[in-house]
Amino acid sequence: MMRQKIFLFGDSITEESFSDGGWGASLADLLRRKADMVLRGYSGYNTRWALKVVERVFPAAEEDGRDSPAAVTVFFGANDACLPERCSGFQHVPLDEYKQNLRSIISFLKNRWPQTAIILITPPPIDEEARLRSNEDIDLDILRYPYIENTTGLPERTNEVAGRYAKACIAVAEECHISVIDLWSKMQQIPNWQTECLWDGLHLSRVGNKVVFEEVAKKLKEEGIGAEDLAVDLPLIEDVDPKDPLKAFDEF
Amino acid sequence: MMRQKIFLFGDSITEESFSDGGWGASLADLLRRKADMVLRGYSGYNTRWALKVVERVFPAAEEDGRDSPAAVTVFFGANDACLPERCSGFQHVPLDEYKQNLRSIISFLKNRWPQTAIILITPPPIDEEARLRSNEDIDLDILRYPYIENTTGLPERTNEVAGRYAKACIAVAEECHISVIDLWSKMQQIPNWQTECLWDGLHLSRVGNKVVFEEVAKKLKEEGIGAEDLAVDLPLIEDVDPKDPLKAFDEF
Repeated sequence: MMRQKIFLFGDSITEESFSDGGWGASLADLLRRKADMVLRGYSGYNTRWALKVVERVFPAAEEDGRDSPAAVTVFFGANDACLPERCSGFQHVPLDEYKQNLRSIISFLKNRWPQTAIILITPPPIDEEARLRSNEDIDLDILRYPYIENTTGLPERTNEVAGRYAKACIAVAEECHISVIDLWSKMQQIPNWQTECLWDGLHLSRVGNKVVFEEVAKKLKEEGIGAEDLAVDLPLIEDVDPKDPLKAFDEF
Repeated sequence: MMRQKIFLFGDSITEESFSDGGWGASLADLLRRKADMVLRGYSGYNTRWALKVVERVFPAAEEDGRDSPAAVTVFFGANDACLPERCSGFQHVPLDEYKQNLRSIISFLKNRWPQTAIILITPPPIDEEARLRSNEDIDLDILRYPYIENTTGLPERTNEVAGRYAKACIAVAEECHISVIDLWSKMQQIPNWQTECLWDGLHLSRVGNKVVFEEVAKKLKEEGIGAEDLAVDLPLIEDVDPKDPLKAFDEF
């Protein structure tokens, strides 16, 4: 039996998802012996850049020689929602183009793998004060192309604008009849979400990672690919008879 | 560019390596954008059972349609070293057979993938007191084939015997000219290793996981497949020119 694959496609919040307490690692742990998580996070990317690379990120069926993945999470928007006239403006993508890019990514995935569950995730909420402090901490010297220094005293992202991208993401999911996690709303239900769920006003704390993990696990279950639904790869120790251990390995 | 793969093949200490602070997740995080960790841990398995399933665990080149993996970690021995006459005796494998099974696994991997780095890892040391407590905690009711109840008042593994298996593992690695991590010795250099590195006298604590992570990362580096050696998949945000972002994506 080949294990099923689940691709995690997104920006830095996906790329960092195997760090300590990360949601990607937690999914890999939940589905151990059952499915492989494939980490495809690209820090700083927006949907415009994601669309440029999508064919390289997802191998064509004939190259891979395998069945389609069980699921793909598509988690973009935090960078698209950078304000155009501020210090991360080069990452900004207008709202309408964001929607169109999401549609194109979904259409690409549906075309390549008609059976694969696609799970959209909205950008998280933004803590503007923490973002402002974080902008000031960037070491401009280590970058080949330094981000434009923040001299405005204003954060490069706002929660209100992130919310507009979240709503657009949900609208695209509904239009395309696919699953969506409204992380922007979900996270703001947690008291002190600004510091509980985020560590720099944008990226996930341990609690924030747990929220994403639980929401993705729930969606996978809804799609019929939860921990209880997937077959176990090779005999479990619980199924090995101490009186005749090798029997389990002749049977499988 | 297809990312390289690194297979993690072993028993429960590998299967659990994506839990919180786990060494597998830490490797995935270290090599993000560079290599995919493929988790192939099988709780309770010894080398005899591993050899029974090795062809199923590692897909043949033509099936996978891909280059050989960059590396495979082979981390067995903790179960082979169970004492034959005690409560986990059905997992025991005699020392000579353990060596022969390791040779066969290595030979299988070398035959399938001549270019792949193989990294053996010895079993960890054993804290016998903690094992004894752990034996008593097993809920026999939840198992299809309950482990034989421990009525001896003696632990099912001893540190001295685990050490013999560790030495055998090192001898096989030298004989086969492959890398080996002497975890049994390495861990015992840490003050209070019994409780610092292990949580039930056998499985890894956060500190124990860190030791394994650092040792594997070091070996990967020695094999020329460290974080600095591997190519990055797709342009880094640092290499995107804020004045002309799309240029980076036309170039790659």
